[in-house]
Amino acid sequence: MLKAFGYAAQQSTRRLEPFHFERAEAGAGEIEIEVLFCGVCHSDIHQVKDEWSNTVYPCVPGHEVVGRVRKLGSGAARHRVGDLVGVGCMMDSCRQCAPCKAGEQNYCEGPNSWLATYNGPMVPAEKAPGERNVYGRDNTFGGYSDVLVVPEDFALKIPAGLRPEVAAPILCAGATTYSPLKHWGVKAGQRVGVIGFGGLGDMAAKLAKAMGAQVTIFTRTEAKLAEAKRLGVDAVLGSDLKALAALKASFDLLLSTVPERHDVNPFIPLLKRDCTLVIVGALEPMAPVNQQEVAFHRKSVTGSLIASLAETQEVLDFCAEHRIGPDVQIIGIDEIDEAYDKVERGEVRFRYVIDLASLKAQRE
Amino acid sequence: MLKAFGYAAQQSTRRLEPFHFERAEAGAGEIEIEVLFCGVCHSDIHQVKDEWSNTVYPCVPGHEVVGRVRKLGSGAARHRVGDLVGVGCMMDSCRQCAPCKAGEQNYCEGPNSWLATYNGPMVPAEKAPGERNVYGRDNTFGGYSDVLVVPEDFALKIPAGLRPEVAAPILCAGATTYSPLKHWGVKAGQRVGVIGFGGLGDMAAKLAKAMGAQVTIFTRTEAKLAEAKRLGVDAVLGSDLKALAALKASFDLLLSTVPERHDVNPFIPLLKRDCTLVIVGALEPMAPVNQQEVAFHRKSVTGSLIASLAETQEVLDFCAEHRIGPDVQIIGIDEIDEAYDKVERGEVRFRYVIDLASLKAQRE
Repeated sequence: MLKAFGYAAQQSTRRLEPFHFERAEAGAGEIEIEVLFCGVCHSDIHQVKDEWSNTVYPCVPGHEVVGRVRKLGSGAARHRVGDLVGVGCMMDSCRQCAPCKAGEQNYCEGPNSWLATYNGPMVPAEKAPGERNVYGRDNTFGGYSDVLVVPEDFALKIPAGLRPEVAAPILCAGATTYSPLKHWGVKAGQRVGVIGFGGLGDMAAKLAKAMGAQVTIFTRTEAKLAEAKRLGVDAVLGSDLKALAALKASFDLLLSTVPERHDVNPFIPLLKRDCTLVIVGALEPMAPVNQQEVAFHRKSVTGSLIASLAETQEVLDFCAEHRIGPDVQIIGIDEIDEAYDKVERGEVRFRYVIDLASLKAQRE
Repeated sequence: MLKAFGYAAQQSTRRLEPFHFERAEAGAGEIEIEVLFCGVCHSDIHQVKDEWSNTVYPCVPGHEVVGRVRKLGSGAARHRVGDLVGVGCMMDSCRQCAPCKAGEQNYCEGPNSWLATYNGPMVPAEKAPGERNVYGRDNTFGGYSDVLVVPEDFALKIPAGLRPEVAAPILCAGATTYSPLKHWGVKAGQRVGVIGFGGLGDMAAKLAKAMGAQVTIFTRTEAKLAEAKRLGVDAVLGSDLKALAALKASFDLLLSTVPERHDVNPFIPLLKRDCTLVIVGALEPMAPVNQQEVAFHRKSVTGSLIASLAETQEVLDFCAEHRIGPDVQIIGIDEIDEAYDKVERGEVRFRYVIDLASLKAQRE
């Protein structure tokens, strides 16, 4: 076993605390990664606080992980020792189902769905009675730690020209917004609206703009209007009903990145006929949708879940090529409580990234 | 002016009563139709009772109208006197907007949207301030009457081999379900689920089956299970959670025909990945949709509104060709109160059609 050190929540009411644990050594086809940086995603907080009622404790969050390959398990040949690699939300999938075979591991339909980088299988054994847990474990420990061991094919290559601390949030915030932009075929000249201007909104706006779309951000935070201008995109207060009315039937795609239950009804009229609003931030029952507005213009409300491995590699390469990336603030692990509070209050601009070198001072 | 006689609601709390009124004579490009049969749609009841808060009184319902052309306005050449024709939900549209030009009049984006066969423009003048009402009127009187005058291109041809009383419900119930089956590309071998087994559900099941799909009806009425068997389709009680669980991820398309607010969450897991649930029956805020199930398999929830003129003609011809049609019960206009009560209690099997010959006895 491998000695590991990180930060964990021991229960839903506790803050993160130093945590010593063990990881299995890299087995066949696996690699051991020295973690350098890990992004702080709003879902880390949802999970730590058990807000989705499925958290396994202890919970070591972190699924925007960039590190350096330190050791190769037997047969692992995809990466070399010393390579910079990234691990996103998934660290494995069933590899047997139709989506996995089609390269859409993020929609894995295996009995336990995909294996999350932390908190274990998406469908834990006790929720799939009669099924064996294909991963043989009910918890995984994420990137708020000094070392990670994953199957080599679930580690993405960090392209040259992308700093590791900037690459980290691309692995979730970037991938989660890139996938629907690509799936719904965003192209130059189209108009894309981004609802919510946090870590995901920041990436969605930059990616859609780099794809040639005309981008409008909808935010409830007046102070963020200037930030949007800095990105060279339009911005509108989501509460400004007059401004919304003027944008009626003008968008080809709307992406909602708001990370909790919210009301999309004010935005549906902004879609053109036959167009789609994709919810990527929230994973709970939403406010009721007014079916009249939807049916009268055959609009769709849908959702999209993170991204496939191929899309995640694509968005890393796309960001390097277009010289875009998240706005990050580097923090030490000892600043995590304050960071969580600011994320919850919507005060982060736009993504905290933990420098795991800060763990050393904690360990000693 | 033309003397007309029909049944109208004078206010939301009143039942339908005999109503003498006048219609403008057929103008340029219009035709005068002697009404023979008119279907009773659940939306007639919603409208009469002002359940969508937009009813204009007096309200003469009826948008599943079949009749015989009696007179041609100047220049009208599409139909001949004596032809059997049908009029569905729309009797005109703006003819200027992109959807109208693309032949999708049912998604008309003109300032007043399309002109409903009864209750007037979909967007009445007072709801579009500053816009002129392109139709010059705020009410229209529908097919529960002895005569109708409409633009000739909004009258469909009733194909030989389709009895007029059977053709009537195809103009709304048939068209409304045919349009999404076609738009979402239902084809032989696919599996289609129909939620709700009333007038629309009956037509949806028959149409999907004729398209070669394997059809399952979901109903909350145990007594209707046998009716489905008679149609040669599967049927499941919507409340039978065990039966629903066994159908997980097996449907290519789900069509909800339930004509009021309802909960689609129990059915979303039945869709295959990337597939769609189309709501055609309800036009109000729905029960909150659980975004987790939607996002985890990139499913969509959408809506569809009646059908274009071309699709309405297509479904009439399709029904004649495949020798299918609604199960109808012919009633006299004097039986309308009892019919409404039974529709509301879900007791109709499956569509009441008024024989307008019964008006004569009322008038004399």
